[in-house]
Amino acid sequence: MEITKWMNEFLPGVVDGLYRSIREGYHVRVGDYMGLSGRQEVYEVLDDLLAVLFPGSWSRDRVQEQEIAMFIDETLRRVSLTLIRLMRGAFKNAERSDAGGDSDTMAEEALFHLMRSMPRVRNTLIEDVEAAYNGDPAATSFDEIVLSYPCIDAIATYRIAHLLYEKRVPIIPRIMGERAHSRTGIDIHPGASIGSRLFIDHGTGVVIGETCEIGNNVKIYQGVTLGAKSPFEADGTVRRGQKRHPTIEDDVIIYANATILGGETVIGRGAIVNGNTWITRSVPPRTVVHRD
Amino acid sequence: MEITKWMNEFLPGVVDGLYRSIREGYHVRVGDYMGLSGRQEVYEVLDDLLAVLFPGSWSRDRVQEQEIAMFIDETLRRVSLTLIRLMRGAFKNAERSDAGGDSDTMAEEALFHLMRSMPRVRNTLIEDVEAAYNGDPAATSFDEIVLSYPCIDAIATYRIAHLLYEKRVPIIPRIMGERAHSRTGIDIHPGASIGSRLFIDHGTGVVIGETCEIGNNVKIYQGVTLGAKSPFEADGTVRRGQKRHPTIEDDVIIYANATILGGETVIGRGAIVNGNTWITRSVPPRTVVHRD
Amino acid sequence: MEITKWMNEFLPGVVDGLYRSIREGYHVRVGDYMGLSGRQEVYEVLDDLLAVLFPGSWSRDRVQEQEIAMFIDETLRRVSLTLIRLMRGAFKNAERSDAGGDSDTMAEEALFHLMRSMPRVRNTLIEDVEAAYNGDPAATSFDEIVLSYPCIDAIATYRIAHLLYEKRVPIIPRIMGERAHSRTGIDIHPGASIGSRLFIDHGTGVVIGETCEIGNNVKIYQGVTLGAKSPFEADGTVRRGQKRHPTIEDDVIIYANATILGGETVIGRGAIVNGNTWITRSVPPRTVVHRD
Amino acid sequence: MEITKWMNEFLPGVVDGLYRSIREGYHVRVGDYMGLSGRQEVYEVLDDLLAVLFPGSWSRDRVQEQEIAMFIDETLRRVSLTLIRLMRGAFKNAERSDAGGDSDTMAEEALFHLMRSMPRVRNTLIEDVEAAYNGDPAATSFDEIVLSYPCIDAIATYRIAHLLYEKRVPIIPRIMGERAHSRTGIDIHPGASIGSRLFIDHGTGVVIGETCEIGNNVKIYQGVTLGAKSPFEADGTVRRGQKRHPTIEDDVIIYANATILGGETVIGRGAIVNGNTWITRSVPPRTVVHRD
Amino acid sequence: MEITKWMNEFLPGVVDGLYRSIREGYHVRVGDYMGLSGRQEVYEVLDDLLAVLFPGSWSRDRVQEQEIAMFIDETLRRVSLTLIRLMRGAFKNAERSDAGGDSDTMAEEALFHLMRSMPRVRNTLIEDVEAAYNGDPAATSFDEIVLSYPCIDAIATYRIAHLLYEKRVPIIPRIMGERAHSRTGIDIHPGASIGSRLFIDHGTGVVIGETCEIGNNVKIYQGVTLGAKSPFEADGTVRRGQKRHPTIEDDVIIYANATILGGETVIGRGAIVNGNTWITRSVPPRTVVHRD
Amino acid sequence: MEITKWMNEFLPGVVDGLYRSIREGYHVRVGDYMGLSGRQEVYEVLDDLLAVLFPGSWSRDRVQEQEIAMFIDETLRRVSLTLIRLMRGAFKNAERSDAGGDSDTMAEEALFHLMRSMPRVRNTLIEDVEAAYNGDPAATSFDEIVLSYPCIDAIATYRIAHLLYEKRVPIIPRIMGERAHSRTGIDIHPGASIGSRLFIDHGTGVVIGETCEIGNNVKIYQGVTLGAKSPFEADGTVRRGQKRHPTIEDDVIIYANATILGGETVIGRGAIVNGNTWITRSVPPRTVVHRD
Repeated sequence: MEITKWMNEFLPGVVDGLYRSIREGYHVRVGDYMGLSGRQEVYEVLDDLLAVLFPGSWSRDRVQEQEIAMFIDETLRRVSLTLIRLMRGAFKNAERSDAGGDSDTMAEEALFHLMRSMPRVRNTLIEDVEAAYNGDPAATSFDEIVLSYPCIDAIATYRIAHLLYEKRVPIIPRIMGERAHSRTGIDIHPGASIGSRLFIDHGTGVVIGETCEIGNNVKIYQGVTLGAKSPFEADGTVRRGQKRHPTIEDDVIIYANATILGGETVIGRGAIVNGNTWITRSVPPRTVVHRD
Repeated sequence: MEITKWMNEFLPGVVDGLYRSIREGYHVRVGDYMGLSGRQEVYEVLDDLLAVLFPGSWSRDRVQEQEIAMFIDETLRRVSLTLIRLMRGAFKNAERSDAGGDSDTMAEEALFHLMRSMPRVRNTLIEDVEAAYNGDPAATSFDEIVLSYPCIDAIATYRIAHLLYEKRVPIIPRIMGERAHSRTGIDIHPGASIGSRLFIDHGTGVVIGETCEIGNNVKIYQGVTLGAKSPFEADGTVRRGQKRHPTIEDDVIIYANATILGGETVIGRGAIVNGNTWITRSVPPRTVVHRD
Repeated sequence: MEITKWMNEFLPGVVDGLYRSIREGYHVRVGDYMGLSGRQEVYEVLDDLLAVLFPGSWSRDRVQEQEIAMFIDETLRRVSLTLIRLMRGAFKNAERSDAGGDSDTMAEEALFHLMRSMPRVRNTLIEDVEAAYNGDPAATSFDEIVLSYPCIDAIATYRIAHLLYEKRVPIIPRIMGERAHSRTGIDIHPGASIGSRLFIDHGTGVVIGETCEIGNNVKIYQGVTLGAKSPFEADGTVRRGQKRHPTIEDDVIIYANATILGGETVIGRGAIVNGNTWITRSVPPRTVVHRD
Repeated sequence: MEITKWMNEFLPGVVDGLYRSIREGYHVRVGDYMGLSGRQEVYEVLDDLLAVLFPGSWSRDRVQEQEIAMFIDETLRRVSLTLIRLMRGAFKNAERSDAGGDSDTMAEEALFHLMRSMPRVRNTLIEDVEAAYNGDPAATSFDEIVLSYPCIDAIATYRIAHLLYEKRVPIIPRIMGERAHSRTGIDIHPGASIGSRLFIDHGTGVVIGETCEIGNNVKIYQGVTLGAKSPFEADGTVRRGQKRHPTIEDDVIIYANATILGGETVIGRGAIVNGNTWITRSVPPRTVVHRD
Repeated sequence: MEITKWMNEFLPGVVDGLYRSIREGYHVRVGDYMGLSGRQEVYEVLDDLLAVLFPGSWSRDRVQEQEIAMFIDETLRRVSLTLIRLMRGAFKNAERSDAGGDSDTMAEEALFHLMRSMPRVRNTLIEDVEAAYNGDPAATSFDEIVLSYPCIDAIATYRIAHLLYEKRVPIIPRIMGERAHSRTGIDIHPGASIGSRLFIDHGTGVVIGETCEIGNNVKIYQGVTLGAKSPFEADGTVRRGQKRHPTIEDDVIIYANATILGGETVIGRGAIVNGNTWITRSVPPRTVVHRD
Repeated sequence: MEITKWMNEFLPGVVDGLYRSIREGYHVRVGDYMGLSGRQEVYEVLDDLLAVLFPGSWSRDRVQEQEIAMFIDETLRRVSLTLIRLMRGAFKNAERSDAGGDSDTMAEEALFHLMRSMPRVRNTLIEDVEAAYNGDPAATSFDEIVLSYPCIDAIATYRIAHLLYEKRVPIIPRIMGERAHSRTGIDIHPGASIGSRLFIDHGTGVVIGETCEIGNNVKIYQGVTLGAKSPFEADGTVRRGQKRHPTIEDDVIIYANATILGGETVIGRGAIVNGNTWITRSVPPRTVVHRD
């Protein structure tokens, strides 16, 4: 009973220290009675939304052909049940409701926007799958891409999270985006604007910043950063709220480990950016940028 | 009941839109009665195979010394039960069976090939562990490597997936490879040929392409790409089916973030490729390649 | 019953081959009666410790405001119950106990050290959160950082694992560190010494080696390596136990994909290291290092 | 490896023996591609239906006040998804479809009948709760009855199962009824006709046969059998399909361990049947039957 | 999509009907922000308390000898965390707090009373085990009784639930008692007063009413009822709050299916009541009551 | 932090009290390193054995037709893995090994006996199903009986547990039997000898004692006791080890709530025992016993 004795003597002080740090220092504030209670539920919502986009392939259980419509219906309702609660808490927590509405209304609008957009999201994703098939010599079938390519996870998650970002839902889109980042190594901020037919090959280390604009039919390889130049002012404080990340026009290819920085940097339509390049100025259309 | 009302009015249209996209657009085709129903079961098969290689350490439950043989036996049979079903579906789905046999026979042959090879896979993996111990100053014991080094996860998964790739099992080896990629940041295509005593340190961002050939006793650090030059023909279509990735001979060391590209590129026996290098031509044996 | 027949005929040989490889070759040794039985329990301990640092946000279940103290208390006791058992097994397994005590005493000391330090760990983490808020223009609230930034996962895990490393607990701190590596792409060795207010943005591909020393208020971006020069002696054997990794002083910023190598390399206070740089020699304080 | 050796030698024969018994002897027949695959899914359907009747109290998770409608909606859809599949299989299996329709149509009709009746089932159950409150001196509140009285489980399950029995769904209503029997010791055949305001106190050992008719406001105590006289003809074969069990009119009380047998036996309105009685003939209204 | 169509048309009405029944009719009231949210958590509390009484045997996981004290400590704290919340909700819900204190204080007192009494409960249970061993010729060891006799489940649960009943905790003790009833067929009301060394053999159908008083060293067989005479007044209303159930003095044996009724009925010390008897009057000490 | 304070002050004493009761009083003894650690694993073994007898119907997951042999094979091996461990612990614990062998050998013999007998058990069970079909007018198909009749659970469990009882395995057969008792209300001691074609209708409250002998083709209804007369000697001590329970010959029918007691009591071939009878003497063949 040695340890138990130590515990009884010293643990109360440890608990007290932690408790004080939580009560007196910073602590994720919890809304009146429901609050924003962690990430597990956001993950479940995201899993359900991905399963609706790819029933059978991305769902936990098998789905029979004739059950698909019922499966979609039931799953979207389960999602709604949880997501509306989470978003209400998130808005209330952020006290962003004064920005034009109460937290309940804002949560409902975000939910309806998401739901309404789901068929369009699916159609765009199938175009992304097609782009992957056309872009990767190793791809043998659409099925293989849906079932194993990390970019599908990252892009599908982005397309969902972006819908919530558009409705200014706090935190939840970031939690979604970071789960995909964790699983794929591809870090797409939900705020980025991305067209259709995006293909990201391998993907580990890709960073796409909050104010990026990406056109249609763009190919990106592993380790590519679409980032900001230094985010700091001369006095060391951080610059917020401007366009800090580059614009990539249609039909651009960016090979592995290229770094493209800055809010005014534009990679023109059809340009090819080779690997390991470092780019802080705009590139005209149809140019090929070589490693110096 | 606001939301419920909205749901009842608008959700049917959303469901219908998604359903139509699935039925009329692309959808992972499901075999007659069983099909390829997602990735979860592949993960469970892979977990079981890894547990057989490292009972106790990689199994979910503890395994006692005198239970090891029974544990291996029982686990391999559980694996067989699930994997044969998945592979039958995968072959049927891919209609690759006309390539020399029916889907049932091809699935059985793949299973037997995998099973027969498992002892050899384990012996090779122990050599990989030894290579890691000899290659990393921070390593304190074999146990530490088995229990915590991401390269063991990635390489063990590769060695299993490669056996299925050899038997042309569709998709399943890629799902396996991509799980390891997700967990380790190390992306080894199951098609690559890799000798014994491979050590990959840290590993995040490593890419080893489908037609790579890697000899024995090779060391690779984080961020190394063994990739293709541009996969596109002049007309923008993708080149499939050729040797597109480099050959790495025995005893080579490739330091962090080096990029080696092209199917004819050969890194000769005993060469050392330093970090952040960019290599698109062959390197003679025993050479040291410096960053320019 | 085709497969069953094959199984009955050939599987015994496969099982025997694997069994022999385990019994006669290398196998993670299991302590007398409990041993070090895998990683799952270490993950559960780590989950519980993270939940104690961020109740509600990082715990699996919701925690009400008035339950926080009881939740911390109960969770720390559950952690102790499992961790003491794991550490006893780890010490016994490693036969490191002769280094100044028996495995039971060493396990207890490690546990008490960890427990005692938890309030301090939390306070430091809150400073890390503040540093992230001040360092990232995309951050909108502390909550967002705690709930979605991968660096919090990586740094919190490091701060816990480092406490066990200080008490020379074998393997367990590495298992912890590698879980964070797997989830975030950020690979911090538990042996590194790191001050307060560390911010790592995006993080994928970051490597911080075992003998690194990092001061306060340091900012690090994705793909940064703080590594060793070649770990091999001229005769190919590995160098163990020296300071092999750089020292980063207070207030340094290291941008994306910079590589800083060597045990004598010191980045002086307030220096800025730009992206894609390759540094193997010391940098004076307040210097800006540009890409050549 | 003793046991493994025995296994390899003798187990194939055991497996073969069991397999032959299943293939050549009797085996629950499985429909073409889906079949009736066991009881677990029926239990989940039943759990969901009970949760819809008592959200929060009988559901696995908490349900907030403002979520109730969405919870009911989503749960009924999940039930439908599973139940329609199970019932299709059950009808197909039983080849009862020739009795007036195909198995799909019959499954749909049964589902719609069940769904349509759920609000009425709930209203009746609340009357049952009221009857329990008025009938048991130990009851302190409606809540206590809903949350702890076994008769609520048994009666709610009966009222659901009876709806499926009315549509001649094979087996599934019996699986439901027997789960309640297992949990409460109260064995109500789904075929029985039972009015409102039924109270069963304690309940263990109560048997209510298939062709029983029970009026409103009846009270039954533990160990009461409402059964058949001998179900066997003189030649030992069983009599099927007649009214074999008694009729209990409104307002009757039947005390513990009374046995009432026979299809023509009628216990008249308002009668009181005392404990341990044995009754095989009708009892006039308002009579008190004493133990002889 | 037939069913989906039906669902969309008719299900809203069904949901509305159920919702109205819940909102307008009776519904388990939920406390302000926490409430009494079902039975699952009560079962988990009960499982934990039983595990503390029989670590290893009744706990879900194994417990090592040297972990016992820590296991007890940690488990009691987990119990406290959940139980205090449930009891607060239960008191608040029942508005019984006006009976001498607020719901928080009453919940705390009940918790402390339970905790303080746990060692005594265990000692008494070991005496019950001994009584079972001495009372059953089929018993081969104490272990067998602890691990397989249903009376241990029923009596242990009763002894815990009775402690909460003493502190007038609403509903929770009944939920506990009814779980044991469900699992064992033994229905002991938490309000009964029961001495030590109780043995109940087989047990199915045993009923022990709320106001029973049972001495030490009593043996009871299956199907025994210790019940009330008719609980109804002449006008049909129920009699509440009196002693309605018999008193059983020390050393009494009651064989199978005996029925003993009435609040004034006393079975005197050392009496033997034979099977299938019906007793509504007191029996003097040391008498043997035969079946008439 | 009120409660936490109380906990810190008083809980150590509670823990100490419980701990002392466990260490100094009685505690289920745990074998050297593995022991008999509870009931959960026995239940899992039993579930697996029942699933092997009725694949698909009693298994947790679906089993396809062509997987049946592999499913049986794999499941029997999983059972063996766990059961041999449990039985070794049970024999060691009981120190019954001196009765003619060491605990390892005895455990192996018991396992082999069980495995070898499984096909015979299945064949007998199918006869039991047929007997139920022929004995119950409410039965509509064999499937319904397998999937919903509690007697199948109770009898299948008995037939398995009896095999272990024959090999004198301590405690485990009783844990099995009591689970069936808990789920069905039918209490069959694993020591009873029971022929084929047993049907038990409804079943709640049935008790079949350890030394019962039951022939073929016997029908038993709810509440029937086949028990011992008083198990006590004149001096109050219990009589162990004799035949204490009745013998029931072939083709006997025993209706509800009959009680038959005593080791010399024989119910002759083809006799009919009516409900609520009390029998302590033998009944000649083909007699009908009426309620007096």
